Amino acid sequence: MSKALIYLQSGGPTSVINSSLYGAIREAQKHKEVSKILGSLHGIEGLLDDDIIDIGKEDDEDIELLKQTPAAILGSSRYKLPSSFEDEAYKKILATLVKHNCGYLLLNGGNDSMDTCSKLATFFRENNVDIKVIGVPKTIDNDLALTDHCPGYASACKYVINTVKSVCLDARCYKKGKVYIIEMMGRNAGWLTASVDLLKKPYRPDLIYLPETNFDLLNFLKDIREIYEQYGNAVVALSEGVVFARDVSNVSKDSFGHVQLDGACEELAKIVKRTLGLKTRATQLSLPQRANPQLMSKVDQEEAIEVGAHAALAAINGESEKMVAIKRISSSPYKVSYELVDVKEVANKEKTIPADYMDSLFGMSDKFKEYLTPLIKGEIDIKYEDGICKAAHFKKIRD
Amino acid sequence: MSKALIYLQSGGPTSVINSSLYGAIREAQKHKEVSKILGSLHGIEGLLDDDIIDIGKEDDEDIELLKQTPAAILGSSRYKLPSSFEDEAYKKILATLVKHNCGYLLLNGGNDSMDTCSKLATFFRENNVDIKVIGVPKTIDNDLALTDHCPGYASACKYVINTVKSVCLDARCYKKGKVYIIEMMGRNAGWLTASVDLLKKPYRPDLIYLPETNFDLLNFLKDIREIYEQYGNAVVALSEGVVFARDVSNVSKDSFGHVQLDGACEELAKIVKRTLGLKTRATQLSLPQRANPQLMSKVDQEEAIEVGAHAALAAINGESEKMVAIKRISSSPYKVSYELVDVKEVANKEKTIPADYMDSLFGMSDKFKEYLTPLIKGEIDIKYEDGICKAAHFKKIRD
Repeated sequence: MSKALIYLQSGGPTSVINSSLYGAIREAQKHKEVSKILGSLHGIEGLLDDDIIDIGKEDDEDIELLKQTPAAILGSSRYKLPSSFEDEAYKKILATLVKHNCGYLLLNGGNDSMDTCSKLATFFRENNVDIKVIGVPKTIDNDLALTDHCPGYASACKYVINTVKSVCLDARCYKKGKVYIIEMMGRNAGWLTASVDLLKKPYRPDLIYLPETNFDLLNFLKDIREIYEQYGNAVVALSEGVVFARDVSNVSKDSFGHVQLDGACEELAKIVKRTLGLKTRATQLSLPQRANPQLMSKVDQEEAIEVGAHAALAAINGESEKMVAIKRISSSPYKVSYELVDVKEVANKEKTIPADYMDSLFGMSDKFKEYLTPLIKGEIDIKYEDGICKAAHFKKIRD
Repeated sequence: MSKALIYLQSGGPTSVINSSLYGAIREAQKHKEVSKILGSLHGIEGLLDDDIIDIGKEDDEDIELLKQTPAAILGSSRYKLPSSFEDEAYKKILATLVKHNCGYLLLNGGNDSMDTCSKLATFFRENNVDIKVIGVPKTIDNDLALTDHCPGYASACKYVINTVKSVCLDARCYKKGKVYIIEMMGRNAGWLTASVDLLKKPYRPDLIYLPETNFDLLNFLKDIREIYEQYGNAVVALSEGVVFARDVSNVSKDSFGHVQLDGACEELAKIVKRTLGLKTRATQLSLPQRANPQLMSKVDQEEAIEVGAHAALAAINGESEKMVAIKRISSSPYKVSYELVDVKEVANKEKTIPADYMDSLFGMSDKFKEYLTPLIKGEIDIKYEDGICKAAHFKKIRD
């Protein structure tokens, strides 16, 4: 008997998050075991509220446009499932899934979402509910365990690298310029910020700081003054999570306890201005770093589609409590395979940058550069209408 | 007797500033009247310091790459020429120009640069120096008089429009999201910010504020609360020059007396957070809006090349004290011609948005949309190397 496949998006979006949905749709359409392809709006919240759409009823043009549409088209969520299976939430979720005759559930997200995946799958198993649960990895933070890298990371890197190159070009065109401080996302791991080390002088920032860096404010100011005296400008790239003496007691937290840390660049710019008397400009790369179609990496897009397709196939084949992971076979020529890993082993863990990816001197090692370089290759032919990038639009939502 | 053509870049760069240089180079190469094509480094400062390069010695590949290289490759300047022709500066400038046998001087810049153009041309005329001076327009602010629009403006609009669309997609994917405040450049005129009104719901910001807007903080907060209560998020786009009660007594000024105003979004975000208790994210589009090759408009690039070429041709033909202006013949089909206007009439003036470009209701009029739409059309095929956008590199500079 055929069953519906239901797809959920969760956590912070990426440029290629909807490419994974595309991959799952196209794979599912090949299998007679799948009666319908459904979307749960706002991740797990759609299951709690029975807020479900039939993706099969959307236009094929919009399905194709998913490949160039950033941000979760089904809506995202940061809802944290309770630990106790006695909680009312599980009953509500099950009722929605049974109502829509779901047999396959794919959840696209980061480590928090893999926790949700794991809880749901365990709940179903313990209650003899035949719904297969597969996790689809996604995060610009690249901090998921057991996968070589995460879909979304490479496109964010490509955006960050190219944008920082442009900023360096602009910043360095005055004889006496400013101190530019550019902030990237990354609370605990500096994967994204580290990518700018692929740039070579004069397009590389003068200083790069990761959360893993031992950041010393006084040395920072000393370095800035020296660089400015020599070149008439200075460019600094840093992760939002760089630790320095600032007041974080008052910052917002989400339901997983993560703080919103953005603003390091503005605080440092103020300190530079007051201490050294130099003109500054603080630039957060902000949402565009995870929501930019123009600098999407073709490799990343293709892999995002593949993990979606592999997840659908795995569920249809009866697998559950797994996440699709990317396994690197070789870097040159670049080759990967896809495998299933235990989703519990991924949940709530954070993969930071290995020590041998960082140089003993200032910067990233050749090993890191070999790791990252193949991931950002290839460009996408984006479709525009009158100069504005087209985006998929699902009729049932977002009006 | 053939003479050298010398090219200067000045003021804030744009994505297509080097396309105008490209146009001038390719035009000048066709004429035997031009002995050499020189570049003055950092605009007028290169003439003061005899810091001149021979562009003819650069690789042809780099000349071609000028078309996708943002930021002034010759370096820019904000130096203000003294009013008195008795000043030592004029002697130094003349000495450099005579030494290099210059007969044609092209200055690429905005209204401040046209003031420099006008002063130089007058000085040469009054002293019987046979150097033709032609201004090449450029500014993302679109505030130059006597030209339909300015090269650089459309590409900045295309970046801003597409980036705001992506931010709206991302911002609206949570049920309970944040208040997003996005800040564009524009001190006195809201040309750039106004462009986001080409977006349609749900990709359009909820509120758009130009410096021309009568901004009322209390109404702003009231509107934000209403929008947030209805949609669970709010997106605001505003110009850096939006006037509200903030302390600007302490801000930096450049030599033309312009203040650095960026930071309106952070201040407003703080006020929203404190007053309404909502989560906020402030995003300055910052330098990428004027230095982004990926979202360059093809129409803008072509026009930037043309104004450079027309400027070279005009100087060679003996014209001086003029600026090349773009004259619109029709919007649909889009057609322009190039003409010469008196550079003194452009200098130090600022063209703000005409009243009939703004709607009586909230937003921009159809007339404005007809004006802008053709300008952002067409995409550029950007050249990458291993995922990183290539940029022109002149051997003599930037090492």
